[in-house]
Amino acid sequence: MCSKAGIFFNSIASKSILQTTITLKNDLILRAARGEKTERTPVWLMRQAGRILPEYRAVRERMGGFKELVKSPEFACEVTIQPVDILGVDAAIIFSDILVIPEAMGLNYEMVESKGPWFEKTIQHGGDIEALKIAEANDLQYVLDAIKLTCKELNGRVPLIGFAGAPWTIFAYMIEGKGSKTFSLAKKFLYTNPIEAHTLLEKITKSTINYLKAQINAGAHMVQIFDSWAGILSPQQYNEFSLKYISDICNAITEVPVTVFAKGAFFARAEMGKLNCNTIGLDWNMEISESRSLIGNHKTLQGNMDPCLLYADYATIKKETQNMLRQFGPHRHIANLGHGVYPDIEKDKVKCFIDTVKEFRF
Amino acid sequence: MCSKAGIFFNSIASKSILQTTITLKNDLILRAARGEKTERTPVWLMRQAGRILPEYRAVRERMGGFKELVKSPEFACEVTIQPVDILGVDAAIIFSDILVIPEAMGLNYEMVESKGPWFEKTIQHGGDIEALKIAEANDLQYVLDAIKLTCKELNGRVPLIGFAGAPWTIFAYMIEGKGSKTFSLAKKFLYTNPIEAHTLLEKITKSTINYLKAQINAGAHMVQIFDSWAGILSPQQYNEFSLKYISDICNAITEVPVTVFAKGAFFARAEMGKLNCNTIGLDWNMEISESRSLIGNHKTLQGNMDPCLLYADYATIKKETQNMLRQFGPHRHIANLGHGVYPDIEKDKVKCFIDTVKEFRF
Repeated sequence: MCSKAGIFFNSIASKSILQTTITLKNDLILRAARGEKTERTPVWLMRQAGRILPEYRAVRERMGGFKELVKSPEFACEVTIQPVDILGVDAAIIFSDILVIPEAMGLNYEMVESKGPWFEKTIQHGGDIEALKIAEANDLQYVLDAIKLTCKELNGRVPLIGFAGAPWTIFAYMIEGKGSKTFSLAKKFLYTNPIEAHTLLEKITKSTINYLKAQINAGAHMVQIFDSWAGILSPQQYNEFSLKYISDICNAITEVPVTVFAKGAFFARAEMGKLNCNTIGLDWNMEISESRSLIGNHKTLQGNMDPCLLYADYATIKKETQNMLRQFGPHRHIANLGHGVYPDIEKDKVKCFIDTVKEFRF
Repeated sequence: MCSKAGIFFNSIASKSILQTTITLKNDLILRAARGEKTERTPVWLMRQAGRILPEYRAVRERMGGFKELVKSPEFACEVTIQPVDILGVDAAIIFSDILVIPEAMGLNYEMVESKGPWFEKTIQHGGDIEALKIAEANDLQYVLDAIKLTCKELNGRVPLIGFAGAPWTIFAYMIEGKGSKTFSLAKKFLYTNPIEAHTLLEKITKSTINYLKAQINAGAHMVQIFDSWAGILSPQQYNEFSLKYISDICNAITEVPVTVFAKGAFFARAEMGKLNCNTIGLDWNMEISESRSLIGNHKTLQGNMDPCLLYADYATIKKETQNMLRQFGPHRHIANLGHGVYPDIEKDKVKCFIDTVKEFRF
């Protein structure tokens, strides 16, 4: 088992865990995703397992680096469960990184403290794309082990969310090799090598489908696709180079509810309403009623509080959270922020947001 | 005079230039801004005076730093006129920086090569705001001298655009002290000190009105307000902390046409249609027909090609530029990119964009 006390587990132990069906004690988020009525709105936060928790920072100090944490099923399990214990969220999300996919395909990355990801080798031309492999389940065994271990340890308290980056976002990192304000190298590739761009996006898509299916087999109860750099594409390019591949993934994943969160893709909301998925994530720029009318009533919406609200005083957090809940209404809503929680937010402010959602009744 | 040969001028010479009325030989952009019919669509580029031109890079090598260039009227004049000579644009924009306002108010900044702006002192609390002065025309004499000199040297070939940052964007830099992905310190200030935030925004607004009026007195034929960080605010915060102050500026500037470019503020387009300004800038995410219908027919629209299109081949640049022109239609459009031109774009590709606009007829 993975415990808060931080007892070490070897990988043999984690691999020996047998997948068994555990009845969920709290399945609010799954019911909300499927459009079923729920007694209250479920709530979780993107990046809830992370630096906002002193308990996470303590594990990081023991472990050293972010990637060591991602690659150790025992520690990934431990920090995945922390927000369930400490914050009382309605779902856990497996502690990992979207960049495990480029790595599994052949491009290693480093996570540079306070700078972000950095790839030694990037994709420059067709030959580089040719050399990439399509990732298979066993290329990411450490994530699958973490999921299995976490499911066992959660023991049905809340569902576990698996995730992957959207192909365009992964592509952007593979070309650019690091974060960027404009991702102009990645966009340049789309304009100068559209055919090779599609070849790479297809390889990433196949890898991502394999990966998400493996996460589901390992026990993930739902999955989310993060298109972090959706907002830097023009509407036309977004349809061609991103939405098409997200759609392919949604069509392939039929086992569990799928959430698509495309940050900044306000222009694609109507198109996203046609995706074969259950839930659409909204960022804090996207007005709730407008988004509902663009996306339609057949999708659950997730979000979308400004992450900076959690810098405000408790009364303001409570009032604005209640306003948000009223705007979304009682059905087809999963409460969340419109972005990952920022690392310098106080834990008690996060808890105030979560408690406000959990106490609210329509 | 300021010449391409780069002859030095002392500041006494620049201050002695008398403002005289020069008849404009090309006033296409002013007529388009006022909604008058034009024989063709006018075109210019944000950041057209800059690193895309080898001639600019040569001046930079002579001068050393970006700020030296901004503070020297002779060199600012020289690089302001370069794109008129070399690219054939229909307007010049004075070479300067939005951060001259915080500096004139009491916060010095440095422009760190390939990193961006950096402020030694930032605004932390009310006392810091109290200590700031409201900038007056003579605090920015070097910009006014540059404008006077440029008008004289342009000799009516094309209009000269003056500009300033929107109060929210200037506020964001004054709090944050540098660029940021999230500007979370600045947003935190809005949530934790809303009253002091308004005090600071009012001081910036007054400074900006003084500054823009002085630019117009010095000879600027139109002015643009850049809200570079509009897109990180929620729609509600944008109305309260940004649009209100942009509106105050628009109401105060009655002498020349005003353009408002709020990058990322897709959610505020209908509200921007109510501003007392002539032109609204669109970024490349904003669909043209949707923007037109949200903003209304009484405004000129500026933009909005994806800056990365200029990485494509000539045929694609030409085709997509023509598509854009057709979508905007023959009236109330000023052709531009949806963002400043990226520094690694080839000059001839920029010229292809400009020539395509200039050759196009409806």
